[in-house]
Amino acid sequence: MRQKIAILGSGGMGTACATILEDNNHDVIIYGIDGQEIEDLKNGRNLKYFPDNISFPNFKTTNNLDEAVIDADYILFAIPTQFIEEIFKLVVSKVTKPTIFINVAKGFWPNTAVSVYDEMNNLIKTNSKIMGVVSLIGPSFAIDIVKKNITLVNAVAYNKNLAKKVQKLFSNQWFRVYSQNDVKGAEVGAIFKNMIAIASGMAEALGYSTNTQVALISRSIKEILTFNKYVGGKKATIFGLSGIGDLILTALSPKSRNYTFGKNYFLKNNQEKNMTVEGLKSIEIIYENYIKNKKLELPIIEALYKIIYKKDKVKEVIKSLMIRPLKHE
Amino acid sequence: MRQKIAILGSGGMGTACATILEDNNHDVIIYGIDGQEIEDLKNGRNLKYFPDNISFPNFKTTNNLDEAVIDADYILFAIPTQFIEEIFKLVVSKVTKPTIFINVAKGFWPNTAVSVYDEMNNLIKTNSKIMGVVSLIGPSFAIDIVKKNITLVNAVAYNKNLAKKVQKLFSNQWFRVYSQNDVKGAEVGAIFKNMIAIASGMAEALGYSTNTQVALISRSIKEILTFNKYVGGKKATIFGLSGIGDLILTALSPKSRNYTFGKNYFLKNNQEKNMTVEGLKSIEIIYENYIKNKKLELPIIEALYKIIYKKDKVKEVIKSLMIRPLKHE
Repeated sequence: MRQKIAILGSGGMGTACATILEDNNHDVIIYGIDGQEIEDLKNGRNLKYFPDNISFPNFKTTNNLDEAVIDADYILFAIPTQFIEEIFKLVVSKVTKPTIFINVAKGFWPNTAVSVYDEMNNLIKTNSKIMGVVSLIGPSFAIDIVKKNITLVNAVAYNKNLAKKVQKLFSNQWFRVYSQNDVKGAEVGAIFKNMIAIASGMAEALGYSTNTQVALISRSIKEILTFNKYVGGKKATIFGLSGIGDLILTALSPKSRNYTFGKNYFLKNNQEKNMTVEGLKSIEIIYENYIKNKKLELPIIEALYKIIYKKDKVKEVIKSLMIRPLKHE
Repeated sequence: MRQKIAILGSGGMGTACATILEDNNHDVIIYGIDGQEIEDLKNGRNLKYFPDNISFPNFKTTNNLDEAVIDADYILFAIPTQFIEEIFKLVVSKVTKPTIFINVAKGFWPNTAVSVYDEMNNLIKTNSKIMGVVSLIGPSFAIDIVKKNITLVNAVAYNKNLAKKVQKLFSNQWFRVYSQNDVKGAEVGAIFKNMIAIASGMAEALGYSTNTQVALISRSIKEILTFNKYVGGKKATIFGLSGIGDLILTALSPKSRNYTFGKNYFLKNNQEKNMTVEGLKSIEIIYENYIKNKKLELPIIEALYKIIYKKDKVKEVIKSLMIRPLKHE
């Protein structure tokens, strides 16, 4: 059945989701605050995010939030995490008919150690018309989606029926969705991939190649499992699309923001804390809340903390990782 | 303690292992049958495998097998699997003092459905001086090793003490070895990575990008676990260096022979069965012995079989994977 979907955010992932849903014959409207992007999308392009002149359908667009969300069956949030708080609360107050929220943001909610999904789930309780939140998480660069490359992701929600609705909404012959109700496990994967991507980018900058980056990723899986167990996620989720899948994609590709940050970290004047690099804040939160106080053994994350926040010499930090006592795997 | 190590094979991996062991101050001798390679290695280079003029120590070399293996504490086999049978049996007959064998070959022993490790383990029973076989398995391109990039691998043997000896022999500040005694699990990883690398190369040839290759790798983990459980490997091994680690390295890099084979597969006149592409034979063995007869559900391996051995149309095979009923992950 044709559904009305409001996509909030005219960036790369908003455009990618609109492409899938338009292909599936739904009624899509994109809301954005950047006049140029909105105008571009109306004319079948989005040059700021896809400069290679990729052509899109002529999307319906608006800069009027009320017009976007009125009568929507689904409202999809594709807004950078650091700007999400205000608009999310506003949208919650505007919903007047049964609506499912879809979220593509990951990591921690601004200024908290609570995940984006859990905080959204708390905030919607003030409006009983909102049926729930479903996160789309998995190995998916927006550029590959708009080119209709085969892509597989998870639709994640505590409520299995809601996850299945979003699964059905998005799935087609080139975009396949697996439902998943282990929210905790999926969030753990999404948080760790960005931290490991920073480490992997740093490895490239230090002159290391594939062996080293893959070693880093392989050993990080142990740390992800340790953390995941502590917060109550399921092991199997880590071995799926939102765990190892997203980790590989993010930690091995220069297309990822966190990887690029790590790669440029040792260049002069480049060690500013950048708000859009989610992994950076996560390293601090995980160190302060889990390594320092709760004594979880997460040597790679601790090494990142020492390099970035304590300004330890990177060569010394790497050496201390390599000369630990030899172990059984 | 300084050990004498005979390295049989003057190719990329033989040279890489020699580089590590020389760095660790052992007494290394390389045996090879190619006069040019042997001469090159004596002069601190190996231009056939490392054309960028990488410089090595001046290795001790020989084309006389007896000279190589006499008095060796360790004998390391770095010979392509398809040529290994004859020389392995010969070396077994020549050992006269307590010696540990080290193996870097993976996959199935020629013309059998038995793994290289298990067949070696059988063959050494005729000579009680041979203490056992230890396999080095993990994400490690030879080119990255000779550049002394940080590399992490497993030393795999049923006998934990032997694995620990090899772990100690190789480990240093840039090469770190984890012991592992789940031989079955480690072999499963080594066999599947080559098949998935063929599929990943094909995906690139068909115009797909990172999302698709990572989706393929993520979903293949389910199949690896299914197969691993059936043959009695441990789950944890699949999530380590010789499982997911080696899978990522091999299936995402054009440096791998199996990946390159997949990438060139759809080019004209390129569908010859190539003996050095281990994954090709493995697809047939797994299909004949496990999918057809034993009804294991391995949809990606089955798809590869259909494309390569039944000449089904690749687009139809992919479509049939994508339109399966939607699933929980």
